[in-house]
Amino acid sequence: MIGSPTTPEVGCGARDSDVTESTVSLIARSRDGDRGALARLISQIEAGGAGARAVSSGIFAPIGDAWTVGITGAPGAGKSTLTDRLVTELVSDADRIGVLAIDPSSPFSGGAILGDRIRMQTHATDSRVYIRSMATRGHLGGLAAATPQAARLLAAAGFATVLIETVGVGQVEVEIAAHADTTVVVVNPGWGDAVQANKAGLMEIADVFVVNKADRDGANDTVHEIESMLMMAVEREWTPRIVSTVALTGHGVSELAGAIRSHHEFVVASGAREIRRRVRLEDEVRAIAVGFATDLALQQCEGPDFDALLDAVESGAVDPFTAAERISARQL
Amino acid sequence: MIGSPTTPEVGCGARDSDVTESTVSLIARSRDGDRGALARLISQIEAGGAGARAVSSGIFAPIGDAWTVGITGAPGAGKSTLTDRLVTELVSDADRIGVLAIDPSSPFSGGAILGDRIRMQTHATDSRVYIRSMATRGHLGGLAAATPQAARLLAAAGFATVLIETVGVGQVEVEIAAHADTTVVVVNPGWGDAVQANKAGLMEIADVFVVNKADRDGANDTVHEIESMLMMAVEREWTPRIVSTVALTGHGVSELAGAIRSHHEFVVASGAREIRRRVRLEDEVRAIAVGFATDLALQQCEGPDFDALLDAVESGAVDPFTAAERISARQL
Repeated sequence: MIGSPTTPEVGCGARDSDVTESTVSLIARSRDGDRGALARLISQIEAGGAGARAVSSGIFAPIGDAWTVGITGAPGAGKSTLTDRLVTELVSDADRIGVLAIDPSSPFSGGAILGDRIRMQTHATDSRVYIRSMATRGHLGGLAAATPQAARLLAAAGFATVLIETVGVGQVEVEIAAHADTTVVVVNPGWGDAVQANKAGLMEIADVFVVNKADRDGANDTVHEIESMLMMAVEREWTPRIVSTVALTGHGVSELAGAIRSHHEFVVASGAREIRRRVRLEDEVRAIAVGFATDLALQQCEGPDFDALLDAVESGAVDPFTAAERISARQL
Repeated sequence: MIGSPTTPEVGCGARDSDVTESTVSLIARSRDGDRGALARLISQIEAGGAGARAVSSGIFAPIGDAWTVGITGAPGAGKSTLTDRLVTELVSDADRIGVLAIDPSSPFSGGAILGDRIRMQTHATDSRVYIRSMATRGHLGGLAAATPQAARLLAAAGFATVLIETVGVGQVEVEIAAHADTTVVVVNPGWGDAVQANKAGLMEIADVFVVNKADRDGANDTVHEIESMLMMAVEREWTPRIVSTVALTGHGVSELAGAIRSHHEFVVASGAREIRRRVRLEDEVRAIAVGFATDLALQQCEGPDFDALLDAVESGAVDPFTAAERISARQL
């Protein structure tokens, strides 16, 4: 069902027919602190389609005062341990913490990330902490669309801070972290040689740089290198902080929490939050629209008509672009 | 322009209006060994849109006897050095080699891959070798669509073997390698701890396993581990080969070339090539169709109507899914 284009001010309440009774009751229960309900709603978001749609209609509200913190870095940089420590540092009765751990689906990294998730179970018995990993389903657009929805769900369920941890292996994962209210980029000493990062890109997205494993050789050099690169970078209203940590021992984690809080205060005071959130909302709507378009196209790529079209491509009679164009135009 | 759906047997020649004169002449020149022409055509493919379309129409023909070899593995596994050595081993006057190096666009890996490309310039002066890196543009579907087209272009230009090297950081990159005629998966000793790979997924796609850096501790253990995993895996007609190499010294590279040749012979003799290529063609058409759909959706996400819709989302009057649905239906 598509809302009338001439009445964009139609409220969510008018779309109740899309929200199943069980979704409504799950949402109510998640707000009362029911983790099972929260888990089921996030699974619904993850799976996409009508279920995600129902959660979106039922839950949608501006994210309000909840603060999202994106944490990204190369595989092995120590993000999970750091996130674990950061949760301990930030959590309080007044500041409940939700963690969304975004798992890419590369066969080369799946295992590592699963292991990290298990490590984070330190907080499993703390009712003020909710940790959930989310995986890509098919296309990455799905994840770019699902993550902000899940963050909003956690905000609505009373988690004042939502940490979004992504492995920086692909552009989409990095962008998910970059679109949080505060973006933390985790590197290691000697990153220039080991990670061979595209540093300019990281300068643009980082609000806080963490040099983790700072007990290793070259930590100071790495801090200085980031400092000089920041001086040469395009000037921003906020000057990114650099914090050295040793996540394994907890060294520097309270400074990291402080840097995140400073950025939070600055962004709220300067009015940048609204600008940033508008951009994020735009990206979210765009990602969902692309997801819809993708699903529609893939639905066309099935059945005997598609097989006949492929026969024509295989024989060289039709080129792949023409075939794809017929699919787009639903002219199989 | 969309070909009539009732005449899928219309040949490419009938679509000359889509092929600009310069594309036609570039294609002719690329077949005559003009590398500048080849480079321009691949750029056209990479950029997508009408240019890619024109190349596709002009060049399209079944890939024929050219053989594609996908090489994938975790960052740092030594794929580029190995590819470099493999080119030296495979190239002959009768067997010209094209290399497509697929660059993901993660800010954490961009630099490394650029460095690798420079390393491969060993072959820059060999007219029997053509090396080209291809980058993602926006959405990954673009790359999944562009790679087979570029491979076909190289095949048409007389390169009997096309090596497609991808970093296995994301599902799409791994799939690109998995859809080659022969898929080589590169791991290192101790991969279980270091790379923490999703081994089951790799068992499914590998025709040849390479344990590179085999002069390091644990190489034999890694070979044995792969052997036992292969014994437990779903039985396939082809039993994947395992080759130990030290790419830096060239050790084992001729065995690797031999394993690739054996797989080639087996696949051609067994008739599996046609089945595999059909699946690949299906994926290619699907990827292009998704690319078209994505571009159309993104075109809708611009302008004052989109801004007004976002205002409604921002105020909480419209949820993101409803907004995206209006975009899909072009009912802004």
